[in-house]
Formats: sequence, C-alpha cells, structure tokens
Amino acid sequence: MEGEPTRLMIAVNESTIKGYPHPSISSKGALDWTLQKIVRSNTSGFKILFLHVQVPDEDGFDDMDSLYASPEDFKSMKYRDRARGLHLLEYFVNRCHEIGVACEAWIKRGDPKEQICYEVQRVHPDFLVTGSRGLGPFQRVFVGTVSEFCVKHAECPVITIKRSADETPQDPVDD
Amino acid sequence: MEGEPTRLMIAVNESTIKGYPHPSISSKGALDWTLQKIVRSNTSGFKILFLHVQVPDEDGFDDMDSLYASPEDFKSMKYRDRARGLHLLEYFVNRCHEIGVACEAWIKRGDPKEQICYEVQRVHPDFLVTGSRGLGPFQRVFVGTVSEFCVKHAECPVITIKRSADETPQDPVDD
Repeated sequence: MEGEPTRLMIAVNESTIKGYPHPSISSKGALDWTLQKIVRSNTSGFKILFLHVQVPDEDGFDDMDSLYASPEDFKSMKYRDRARGLHLLEYFVNRCHEIGVACEAWIKRGDPKEQICYEVQRVHPDFLVTGSRGLGPFQRVFVGTVSEFCVKHAECPVITIKRSADETPQDPVDD
Repeated sequence: MEGEPTRLMIAVNESTIKGYPHPSISSKGALDWTLQKIVRSNTSGFKILFLHVQVPDEDGFDDMDSLYASPEDFKSMKYRDRARGLHLLEYFVNRCHEIGVACEAWIKRGDPKEQICYEVQRVHPDFLVTGSRGLGPFQRVFVGTVSEFCVKHAECPVITIKRSADETPQDPVDD
C-alpha cells in the first residue's frame, strides 16, 4: 500500500508582526496540524513541499527612508529579500529534518494566490495545505484571502487550517 | 507521536444515477483518495466517521404513483428509506473493515449541508472530507453546493475531493 510518498504542499509566509522573518502563526499552525493529524508516525509516507511567495512591494513602507542611487542599491535589496526568504524556509526545513520527514522548499516572487496556484499546476502535489487567519467577512474585505482563492482555483484538493483562537494576536489582521 | 487516532469525517451519499442505493462516484472517490493519500499504511492512526444525510423529499418523484392512505404507508416509506441508508453505509463500513481501519457510520435526515455542519459541531472530527462533482459555476447554480457550504461553515478543516474527469458521467450533474 505504501509506494510513492504523498506529496503535500504547504504555502508558508512571514509573520506580519515582527521585524525579523519569523514564520507567521498560521504557517506554523498549518505545519503543526499536518504533522500531528496527517503525517503522524508515518514519516516515510509523506514528502512536504514548502512554497514561500515573496511579495515584491510588501516591504514598501520599510523602504521609505532608503535611497536608491545606483543599480547596486536594488541588488542589495534583492539580496536582503533573498536572505529573509531563506531564513524563513530554514525554520520549516529544520522542523522536518528533526522529525525525519522528507521535504523541499523554494521561493517565488509575485502575487501569493496566483503563484501558489501556478506552482500547484507545475509540481502536481497530492494536496495543498494553507494556513488562514480565520478572519470574519468584514476583516476579509481588507486583507484579501489567499486561502479562499486557492480553494476555488488550485488544481488539487486544498485544506485550510485556521489559526486557533488562543493564538490570535490583539489585532486579528496580524499574523 | 501516535496517541489517539485522527478522527476524520466523510460525508457520503447515494448515486443519483442508479435506482439502487449505490454510493455516488464522488463519495467513493473521497474515500479512495483518503485511504490512498492520507491513511496509507497507517491504518491504526485513523478512525473514519461516515455520515450519510438522507433528504426527506429526494425521492419525491419516485413516490408520485404511490398512494398514502394510512399512517402505515408512511411507516413503510420510512422503513424503506432506512434500508436504503443502511445498505449505503454497509458498503463504506465493509471497505474499512477489509483494510483494517476503525470506523463508525450513522444516518441523519434533513438538509445535507446543515446536518453535516451540525454533526461536525457535535462530534468534533479533526477534519471533514467531502466529495464533489467538480461542476462549473453554471451547473452549480442549479444543483447547490454542499461542499462549498461546508468549507465556509463547518467548524473544522475541510478538504474537498473533486470527482476525476474520467469518472464524469455523460451528464456531469449525475453522480
């Protein structure tokens, strides 16, 4: 019954609260849930594919005081983004390595919902796990809903893991 | 890491094509997918909860020629419904028994989407698996979308398994 491992993709992103690239509460929650409820002790039966999509304009506010005077300035900005992304993926790859679950991780740039669906189409995971802040309809209007888009458009089954109530920060839009 | 098994609920229904209570293509597909991609060889790590919701008016057309003359007629109708439901659940329970996965199965009557969400609230599965015909937006208008409702309203993570393209009957609304 075993054969090829089940390939599940988890879309992960950074926390919006802290300055340093910590994983978001919902990304961590999505991995924890997957390990606890799906993978369980069957570590050789699964391979986890971590996709992190960087949003090019996301750090626009941090860069307000930056001066761009030469092509080098943009290069260093790209290096910094790359370093942040790698640091984030390191957390997830380390977790899997500790437990003994095979994994792969990579970074894409662009609109998260579109890039996730595009990568699903490209690598054909068996299913996709997304974290979600579990916001109400009013809050959703302002923050967009990557998970809802993926449920509708990704070409594989999608399971959305909502952040648990006791992990919700003071402002539920934070993560 | 093992401890209590992961409790996953699968909502199952009858085929709309055949006269006898065969499981629908999407219900069978949802179970097959779950066994192959999630449970795998870890049969002791999971318990499957099968919920079948019977729609009281679903057989309205079959009953057009029936005569209801006494309370007994209604009783016999209820017995027949009960027999159909049990026959359906027997298929799923047998599948699990063959493979050695623990399971429970039960029947509710009412609106499937509401009853599924209600039962999720009552029995607290770790997640819910629903089958889906994978209809386009035009077809969806007429047939309703239990899976979409559950994704939005069920109080647990939900994964929807679409019927595979090669199993789609001539009229995609059939199942």
